[in-house]
This record gives sequence, structure tokens and C-alpha cells, in this order.
Amino acid sequence: MSTRSLQERVLAANAALGARALSTFGNVSEIDRDAGVVAIKPSGVPYEELRVDGISVVSLDGERLAGLVPSSDTPTHLELYRAFTTIDGIAHTHSTYATSWAQARRPIPCLGTTHADYFNGPVPCTRTLTDDECGDEYERMTAAAIIEALEGLEPLEVPAVLVASHGPFAWGASAAAAVEHAAALEEVAHLAYNTVVLDAAVDAVPAALLERHFRRKHGAAAYYGQR
Amino acid sequence: MSTRSLQERVLAANAALGARALSTFGNVSEIDRDAGVVAIKPSGVPYEELRVDGISVVSLDGERLAGLVPSSDTPTHLELYRAFTTIDGIAHTHSTYATSWAQARRPIPCLGTTHADYFNGPVPCTRTLTDDECGDEYERMTAAAIIEALEGLEPLEVPAVLVASHGPFAWGASAAAAVEHAAALEEVAHLAYNTVVLDAAVDAVPAALLERHFRRKHGAAAYYGQR
Amino acid sequence: MSTRSLQERVLAANAALGARALSTFGNVSEIDRDAGVVAIKPSGVPYEELRVDGISVVSLDGERLAGLVPSSDTPTHLELYRAFTTIDGIAHTHSTYATSWAQARRPIPCLGTTHADYFNGPVPCTRTLTDDECGDEYERMTAAAIIEALEGLEPLEVPAVLVASHGPFAWGASAAAAVEHAAALEEVAHLAYNTVVLDAAVDAVPAALLERHFRRKHGAAAYYGQR
Amino acid sequence: MSTRSLQERVLAANAALGARALSTFGNVSEIDRDAGVVAIKPSGVPYEELRVDGISVVSLDGERLAGLVPSSDTPTHLELYRAFTTIDGIAHTHSTYATSWAQARRPIPCLGTTHADYFNGPVPCTRTLTDDECGDEYERMTAAAIIEALEGLEPLEVPAVLVASHGPFAWGASAAAAVEHAAALEEVAHLAYNTVVLDAAVDAVPAALLERHFRRKHGAAAYYGQR
Repeated sequence: MSTRSLQERVLAANAALGARALSTFGNVSEIDRDAGVVAIKPSGVPYEELRVDGISVVSLDGERLAGLVPSSDTPTHLELYRAFTTIDGIAHTHSTYATSWAQARRPIPCLGTTHADYFNGPVPCTRTLTDDECGDEYERMTAAAIIEALEGLEPLEVPAVLVASHGPFAWGASAAAAVEHAAALEEVAHLAYNTVVLDAAVDAVPAALLERHFRRKHGAAAYYGQR
Repeated sequence: MSTRSLQERVLAANAALGARALSTFGNVSEIDRDAGVVAIKPSGVPYEELRVDGISVVSLDGERLAGLVPSSDTPTHLELYRAFTTIDGIAHTHSTYATSWAQARRPIPCLGTTHADYFNGPVPCTRTLTDDECGDEYERMTAAAIIEALEGLEPLEVPAVLVASHGPFAWGASAAAAVEHAAALEEVAHLAYNTVVLDAAVDAVPAALLERHFRRKHGAAAYYGQR
Repeated sequence: MSTRSLQERVLAANAALGARALSTFGNVSEIDRDAGVVAIKPSGVPYEELRVDGISVVSLDGERLAGLVPSSDTPTHLELYRAFTTIDGIAHTHSTYATSWAQARRPIPCLGTTHADYFNGPVPCTRTLTDDECGDEYERMTAAAIIEALEGLEPLEVPAVLVASHGPFAWGASAAAAVEHAAALEEVAHLAYNTVVLDAAVDAVPAALLERHFRRKHGAAAYYGQR
Repeated sequence: MSTRSLQERVLAANAALGARALSTFGNVSEIDRDAGVVAIKPSGVPYEELRVDGISVVSLDGERLAGLVPSSDTPTHLELYRAFTTIDGIAHTHSTYATSWAQARRPIPCLGTTHADYFNGPVPCTRTLTDDECGDEYERMTAAAIIEALEGLEPLEVPAVLVASHGPFAWGASAAAAVEHAAALEEVAHLAYNTVVLDAAVDAVPAALLERHFRRKHGAAAYYGQR
């Protein structure tokens, strides 16, 4: 894949994030693992002013190779690409309901099949960063807390996390898939918010129902879609 | 009615579901009882990409007769058409407020005349499926739980149900009527959510008020509309 | 004013109700007190299909003079025009937040200046109708309960009411003013809903602040707008 | 800067307020400190009817120099420009969630990084005005209560306040910046509302996280954007 093609894909995914009103504060990236480069939204540029040449391209070490100054969250993305080798796209948003759960520092329990269609279990929430972790390495430490929260999970089976007091990161096999998962997460977060308002002590769905819905759409036995 | 005409009606009803933002995850069907065939949304195709030739047509036994692979919820629709012989259209959505009540596993009480204009009593919620019912016959078992929840009710007088931990199914005399009821249900669910937030112990409306509003619009003594 | 001109004004006000998404279930009327006639939305016709010739025109006794079959709520409107001689327009909606307060059977307290700019005190809620009142004279009895709830108030100083378990009626010097007040009521109801969620025991605003804001915009000492 | 250019900037900022649906009841102003004049929205004119010639221009003493009758909130704006010499634009709105916090008379705690990106600490809420302060000098007394609530804070580091039982005022280096801060405040208020619903006892973010995010975007060490 050419660098320009990677920039075009990341431009489209960032534009989709803006168009779906998921965030006025987010950023999307995609990695070309063969070339070892990551394309990501430039810092502080409104979605509607993004141009393909301006999409930042950096090495996995964070060296700028093309485009504008990359998002200040770039070190978080790079660390996640290094740790989660099965993911090729990442979307960070401040979407309203997912961010509300993050600010309450609560994981989102699986309360229904909309959740189970996308996430094979609760969406985890990171621990609060220590004061030291809010220092110069803040963005990399954010990734470290995410990796810690995902321990024991396959990232493509739980393709999102809440960063405590901050907001969600979602990921997938491409930038477009990451945006899709960010959108699903926001809807799932809204449903779960309403549900706990209606019943603060509601139980998570039975494991058999979670398994049924996740496996309808994912993996070898999936029977959803035009296969 | 020709098969193509049935497909056109189902295409329009599914498009209406998408346009009214009732669901990114739903599906609508309609039955031609004379021909013994059901048209339904194909599985995994976005609303905006639906074409009339692609609308799935199946027999009441689930055999595909035309169009793309049908929605994975097709066995639920077919079972409901067999059990509820007065209904000819079904709409399944994950609309936000109706799904929230479903996730809280609470029926929606009749708290006002908006509800009474459409539903002659509470909107029931199914029991939770057993682990066995989440097996290979999951979609048919979902219909069985719906039929159980509607026991003793006339489906056209209570044209919707909540499937516990999942979301709503609505129905009516046609696919278009089913979508209309799905939209009314979502508004009624939103009103009821707000109402129980304002007063957790609010009473249902008196039977006389429910009867007055339901009978203004339905049945022999109706006096609403241009008759 | 000609009957046609009255119909045109009522058509525009009903269209405004639909366009502002205040209601899929409402109706607006205006009275020509010199001619003794009322124009009102026809029953069961979607807003976007309304045509000026179809707007119903009735006498104050309810006799149809022109147009389609009038709204089934017409007896409520007529009774209010007879009782409240300072009002010339009425808008009935099922707007989400105002209807939620009506379903909770709670008056809306004055919690801020947005409220005080439009309503000189709480927005009252009627008592629940008796079973007898839900009989053949239901719509007229609804008006009787409204008139009872407004007792001692000047309708133009409190230009709206909640009908218990039903929804709001708003009014004003014209159909357009009634729609304006219905829209203000919905925003005020939303603000009050959020406010009691944040603090269930919140106090109403001091009388001096209510007076200051209401009198900035209404009456002899008003100093708001281009006078 | 010419007076006309100031009017054009204020026209654009008021139009942005309307377009972003932040308020049907707000007003924006900007000061030209060299010329000693303030341009502000005229009173009672809908956003879509604003014309550049109609934008009111007043001296710092409130004398009208050009345009229509200025907003009735003009004395509040003028007093703030006199007290806060680092700000050159002010936006007043009745945006839904910020106004809800104002009506609950609660400051908005810093519960996440979206807040910390814009406000270096809680957004204060004024005390309730006394009955005397609701007299003829009401609008100036509103400013006095704001100034009291900001005591000890640098206005550009906390560029908004809630006026108790009323709504928010936001400010910045220009009218456009004030609107930007009003929009950020509304989103932050919505997030905080949801968060306290999920956890009424939630803690504010650690000081180190607040500092990290505020300083990423503001001041000498900022590293956000294309610098």
C-alpha cells in the first residue's frame, strides 16, 4: 500500500468520525505493518479542513515522515500498535455516553445483545494514572494503562476500552473498522446508561446469550451477513 | 400481490426504519398469506444499499425463494407469522429507549395517552431465555418467548413486545404499520423513561382513560381521523 | 379577517409545530372572535399533507362550516376559547419533556429565568379525570379540568398547562404565539427535568427574580426587544 | 479596527451561536479596547434576521452609538469588560445542560480531560442574587455576582461561569473564542450531568491530570496544534 493510499484511508476515517458526530476532539490512525508506518490525524486541525497531504505519517518510533504535526495522542496509538499486533486501526473519541462511563470510571457491563454483537464481554475501564504517569511520558503511560486493562483479552474480541477520566479508544482491522467500533460503543454506552437508570442493580446477560450473539457475527461459526 | 410488489413494500418499510433513525440493526418483513411467502431484509446489508431484487423472499418454512441471504432473525419472524394470524408485517429494531427497557427487563407501563393511543395495556417483556434456548434454535426460541409473553392478548391490540436483554419487536397489518408501531413504541418508551425518573412510583393511568384513548382510534366506535 | 386567511394562519402554525419536531400528535387552532369561528387541524392528517382548504372551520358550538373533519380534540379547544376570553390561539402537543412532567402529574416549578421569561409562576398540572369524565364528554371534561387548574391565574401570564397523564396545552394571542409558547414550554420542561435530576430538592427561584424576568418582557414596564 | 468590521465579527459570532443550537435566547459581544466601543446583539431579534447594520454599538458607559436597541443584558457585558481586562469577547447562552447546572446552583466539577482541555478547574456558580439586586440595576448586579465568583481566578484560565438560576456566560480573546468556549462548556456540562447520574459521589480528577491537559493546550509549554 502506498503512503498516499494510507493517508487517504485515514482521511476518510477521520471525516467519518466528524460526520457521525462522534467527537469534536478525536483522532483516527491506521498502520501499514509491512512499511512500518502509521498515518494519523494532524494535531488541532478541524475535521472539515483535513486534506490528504496534511495527514501525518510517522514511523513506529514516532519520527515524522510526512504531513503536518501529528496528534498529541500519537504516542498512545504507537504503543498500542506495538502491543496489540492483531489491530491495524485505532479511533479515539470523546463521544458523550462512552466518555460519561469513563468519567465515572466504570467498565460497561454487557446488558444486551447490541453489546454482545460487538464486544465479547464488558468494555474495561483503565485504572487512574498516578501523578508520575501524568508527567512527560503521559501519552505513552495512557497506552500502558490500556494494555494493563486488556490483559488476558484478545483485542479484536473486545475492540474498545475506556480510559478513566478521559474517554474511549476503539480499534479494529482498519481505520474504518475502528470508527465502526467507536460508533457501536457509543450506542452501547447510551443503552447501558439508560438501563442502569431504570435498574441500578441490573444483571449482566447470561454467558450463553453473550456467546450466541458474539459468535453469530464473529469467528468460524458466524452466520450473519452475506457469506 | 406479486412477489416483486411484496419486495418493493418491504424495501420501502426497511428504508423508513433507517430514515427514522430507529435502528442501525433492525429488519422489517411482510407476509403474503395467500402466496405463503415472506419478504424480509437481507442479512448485514446497510439500509442505504438495499435494492428491490436483493430483498429476501422465503417460504413459511424458511426456504429461500428469491433475493439475498435473509436476516439471521428470519426464524423469529416466521414463527410469529404462524402464531399470530392477524398480523402481516413485523419490524425488529434496537431503538434506544425501547431497548433500554428491554435491557432492564421491565414491561413498559401505560403512563399516558400517547401510549394508550397505540397499545391497549402495558407493553410486555419476555422472560430471559434459558441457556438451552440460546442454542441452535435460538431465533425460533426467541419467538416462543414472545408468544408466551403475549398469551391472552390480541396481537393487534398490543402490537409490540420487548425481548429481555435484546430489544423490541413490533407488528401490524403491514410492514408499514409495523414500522409505525415501532416508532410509536420508541416515543412511548422515551416518555415512560423520563416519567419514572421524575417519579419512580408513578401509577399507570386509570383503566377508563386507557379505554377512552385506545377506542378513540381503534375498533368500531373510533372517531379519530377522516372516516 | 376572511375564513381563508384564518385557515392559512392555522395551516402555517400547524406546519411550524411539525417542523420544530414538537409533536407528531398535536394540533393548533385560532379563533376569529368577530366572526365567531375557529380554524383547527383536521383529524389524523399528517402535517406534511395539510392543505389550506382542508383546515377545518367550526362554529363555537362545534358545527363544521368548512374543511375536513376537525381534530378529535376540538371540544377541548372550543371550551377553552369560551372560558379564556383573552386568548386567540391554542396549541396542543405531546412534546417529550412537557409530556413526561404531565405523565408524572407534577406541575413544573419555576427553576430559572428561561421559565420566568415566559411563565409568571409554575406551569400547573390538572388533577386526574374521574372515570365518568372519561365518558362521552371526555374532550370537554379535559377543558374543564384545565380551567379548574388555571383558577385565579390570568391565562396570558401562564400560557400553558399540563393535562395529567396526557400532555401540554399552550395558548397565546394567536396560533403562532401558541406554538411559540409550546416550544418555550418544552425547553423549560427539559431544563427542569435535568435540574431535579441534579438536585431533587431544588428550590424555586425567589419571587423577585421571577418578577424581574417576566416584567422585562411583558406588560407596561417591559424593556426587552425593539420598542 | 473599524466599527463595521467589529459589527461583522459580532454578527458572525451570533450566527454561529444560533447555528450550533446553543441557544435561542443568547447574545454575543466583542470589545474594541482601543476605540472603547462594544458591539453586541440587538434585543429580541432572531439570529436569522440579524444584519450587520443592526448590530448594536455602544460605548463602555452604555451609550448607543450605532445599530438597533442593544440586548437587555448589555450592562452585564460592559461590567465584565471593565473588570476582566484580558477578555475581548463574551457569549451568553441558555444552552440546555449548562443551564441545568446553573438552575441546580452547582459548580461543574472537573470530571475529565474534556473539561481540563478548556477550564483550569471547576466552572464556578454565582450565589443567588438578593431581592435588592433584582431591582433596577439587575443586569449590572448579575455581573457583580460573576466577578465575585471569579475572585482569585484568571478569567482566561476559567473562561466561563454559571449564573445561579439563570445560565452560563463564557468569554475569550474574541467573540468567536467566546462562542467556542460556550460550546465546550455545554459538552462538558452534558458529560458531567451523565457522570453524576452514573456515580453521585464521583471524585474530581487528580490535580496532575488537570494540569497535564490544560497545559497541553494553553501557555508556554503547550504542545497541541500546529505551532
